[in-house]
Amino acid sequence: MDYAAGSPLDKRVLKEMIPYFAEQFGNPSSPHSFGQMAKNAIEVSRSRIADSINAKDSDDLVFTSGGTESNNLAIRGITTRHKEKGNHIITSAIEHMSVINTCKSLMRQGFEVTFLPVDNHGFVKIEELENSITKKTILITIMYANGEIGTIQPAEEIGKVAQENEIFFHVDAIASAGKIQIDVSENFIDLLSISSNDIYGPKGVGALYINKEARIQPIIYGGGQEKGLRSGSENVPSIVGMGKAMEIAKAELKEEGARLTKFRDKLIDGVTSTIKRTYLNGHPKKRLPNNANIGFDYIEGESLILSLDAIGVQVSSGSACTSKTLEPSHVLRAIGLPHEKAHGSLLFTLGRFSKENDIEIVLSKLPNIVKRLRSMSPLTPKEIPEGVK
Amino acid sequence: MDYAAGSPLDKRVLKEMIPYFAEQFGNPSSPHSFGQMAKNAIEVSRSRIADSINAKDSDDLVFTSGGTESNNLAIRGITTRHKEKGNHIITSAIEHMSVINTCKSLMRQGFEVTFLPVDNHGFVKIEELENSITKKTILITIMYANGEIGTIQPAEEIGKVAQENEIFFHVDAIASAGKIQIDVSENFIDLLSISSNDIYGPKGVGALYINKEARIQPIIYGGGQEKGLRSGSENVPSIVGMGKAMEIAKAELKEEGARLTKFRDKLIDGVTSTIKRTYLNGHPKKRLPNNANIGFDYIEGESLILSLDAIGVQVSSGSACTSKTLEPSHVLRAIGLPHEKAHGSLLFTLGRFSKENDIEIVLSKLPNIVKRLRSMSPLTPKEIPEGVK
Repeated sequence: MDYAAGSPLDKRVLKEMIPYFAEQFGNPSSPHSFGQMAKNAIEVSRSRIADSINAKDSDDLVFTSGGTESNNLAIRGITTRHKEKGNHIITSAIEHMSVINTCKSLMRQGFEVTFLPVDNHGFVKIEELENSITKKTILITIMYANGEIGTIQPAEEIGKVAQENEIFFHVDAIASAGKIQIDVSENFIDLLSISSNDIYGPKGVGALYINKEARIQPIIYGGGQEKGLRSGSENVPSIVGMGKAMEIAKAELKEEGARLTKFRDKLIDGVTSTIKRTYLNGHPKKRLPNNANIGFDYIEGESLILSLDAIGVQVSSGSACTSKTLEPSHVLRAIGLPHEKAHGSLLFTLGRFSKENDIEIVLSKLPNIVKRLRSMSPLTPKEIPEGVK
Repeated sequence: MDYAAGSPLDKRVLKEMIPYFAEQFGNPSSPHSFGQMAKNAIEVSRSRIADSINAKDSDDLVFTSGGTESNNLAIRGITTRHKEKGNHIITSAIEHMSVINTCKSLMRQGFEVTFLPVDNHGFVKIEELENSITKKTILITIMYANGEIGTIQPAEEIGKVAQENEIFFHVDAIASAGKIQIDVSENFIDLLSISSNDIYGPKGVGALYINKEARIQPIIYGGGQEKGLRSGSENVPSIVGMGKAMEIAKAELKEEGARLTKFRDKLIDGVTSTIKRTYLNGHPKKRLPNNANIGFDYIEGESLILSLDAIGVQVSSGSACTSKTLEPSHVLRAIGLPHEKAHGSLLFTLGRFSKENDIEIVLSKLPNIVKRLRSMSPLTPKEIPEGVK
C-alpha cells in the first residue's frame, strides 16, 4: 500500500515497450526507416497523453525524464523566460519538493516567492491567493491534488484567478493524473506536469503540457529535440510505455476510481473506528480515491512501517522523496499537525493491484501492532495503556 | 551501421532489468524492504560503472537521464558553483551539441567561452589550449573521442594542462565509453559524462563522474536524491541496466575492439579503394574502433542514406541529434571540409551485432549506388561521368 512511492509497471505497458528495446531501436531524428518508426511511435504516445488531459493539440506536450524534471522545467522555464514581466511566484506550503526547492533556488536568483498557507484540510484559500497577487506576479504554481494527504485543490477557481490577473498557471498533476479526470482546457491551465510511473508506466519519463501562449526556456540544452525544449535522444521505449499507461488509465479511470474509493473508505473507517486516538489527515471526501493518510497518537510512523513490513504490508510515512531526512512531512506540518502527530502519521496509497483482502489484512493486524507499539512507547500516557477500543 | 544514433538493448541487459519493472519496483528512498532492495540494486550498478572507468569511489558517480543531461549538469553545475573564481570556459569546436549549446547558454549569462579550433584530423592542439588559458579560466571541457569522425583526443595531455593551471577538466566520454578504455584517475579528469544507450544499455539513463574536489550545483531540484545533485525518483530498472551494460562492455572491450577495428578498416579500405573521389574523415589510426566517416564527392549524403536504407543498411550523415537542421555537421566544417564536402559525407558506426557480411554487402552494393547518384547529380563534373573506378 505504498503505490505513491513507486508503482509496478503494468504488464500491458511492458508488452508495448519490449519491441522498442531491441528491435525498433532507431533514433527518431534519423531520416532512415528505423528512425521514422521511432518517431511515429513517439507521436502516437504524445497524442494518447494529450487526449487524456483534453489538450487540444498534442504538440503542446513535451517529454521529460519524469515528474520532478517536468516541475523544474515548468517553473524555471516560464519564470526565467518572462522575468522582465515580474519576479514574483505564488505557490503553496504543501507542494512537492520539486516545486518547493525549484522555487527556493529561484529565490537565490532574485525571485520572490509566496508560499500560501493551507487550512486544516490542506486547501489553498482563494481569498488569500487573490490577496497575495502583486503587479510583479508572473506565476501561480499549485498542485492538482496532494499525494500525501489526498486533498484535491479547487483548480478551476485558482485557474480563474490566474486568468483574470493574466498570470501563468502551472499545475503539478503528478499525484492525480490517471486517478481523477484532468482537463487543461477547462481550468485555464498553462502548464501541467505528469509522470509516467505514477500511472503504472515506466520510471524515468514524464511530460509537461505547455499551452501555446506560454513560452518557456529550456533547462537542458543540446540537439534540440522536443522542439528545442528538451534536448537529449528520446527515450523511445519509455515514451511508448507512458502513452500506453495513460491510455489504460483513461479507459479504466471511472471504474477503478469507484473501486479504490470503496477500499479507501473501508480502510479509513475501519482503522479510525477500531483504534483509539487515530484520525484522518486531509479532507474526507475531496481526496484522491487511492489515498488514506491516518495519524496514530503516541507512535513513531517509522516503527509502524517496519512492523507492517514484517507482515508483508508496505506503507510510507509521507513522501518517499523526503523520507531520508528525519524531519516530519512539511505537508502535515502545514495542515497544522504538531511535530509528534506528524511523525505518527501513516500514508496508505492503494493502486491497481490492491485487493479487498489487503485492506482486511491491515484491519485485522493493525490493532495489535498499535497496541504493542503503544505499550512500549514513552509517548503513551498512563491513562490509556491499551490504546485500543 | 548507425549504432551511434541508437543502439539496441543487449538481451542480457534486458533480462537483468525485467524484475525491477513489475516485481521489485520499490522506491530506494523508502525504509521498507521493497525500498531497500531497490537501493541495493542501484549501488551495485554504481560500483560496476565506477569500476569500468577506474573511479576510486563509486560515491563519485551520479545517475542522470542520459548523456545530454550529464554534459549539461557537468558544465552548468561546475561553472555556476565556482563562478566567483572566474567566468571563462575552454572547449573545442567539435564537441557534441549538448556541450556547445550549454556553453552558449552560459554565454548569455555572462560567461566567456573559447571554442578551440581543431586540425584536419580533428585534434585539439595543446599549444593553442595553453595559449587560450586566462586567469579567469575555470573549466576545460573537451571530449574523449568524437562520435562523428572517430578521432580520439589526447586526454592525458589536456588533463595535465588543466591540472598544472588548476582548472577543472570535464570530459564528454559518451561516444567512447565501453569502446576504448577510459581511466579517470590517470588523466586528471574532474568530471566525466557517460550514457547508457551508447553501451547497449537502456535509453534514458546516464551517469556523471564528479571527483570529490570538484563540487557542482544541481540543475534539477526536488527530493534530494543522488546526494542532492539529481533529484527525482531513481529510474531503478534503467540504472540496473546501465550497470550491467557497463560490466559487459568492460569484459568484452579488448576482443570486441579488435573485431570492430578489423571490420572498420575493411570498410574504409574497401570503399576508398573501389570508389573514386572518396576519402576518410578523421585520423586513420587514432580513431574509435567502430567509426568510419567517409566523404563522397558530388553526392548529397541524404540521397545516399535513403538509397542504402532501401537495401536494408542504415547509416547517418552525422550526429542524429542535429540531422533535423539542414546545416552540414559542425564537426566536418571544423576539420576544414567545405560545405558541399561536409554534405557528401556518410557516417558508418559499427557495433556489437555487426557482422563481416554487413561490410561485404555495403562493399558490393555501394559502388553502383554511388554511380547512379553521381550520374543524376548536378554536382558531378563532365570529365568523370562514371565516378567509379
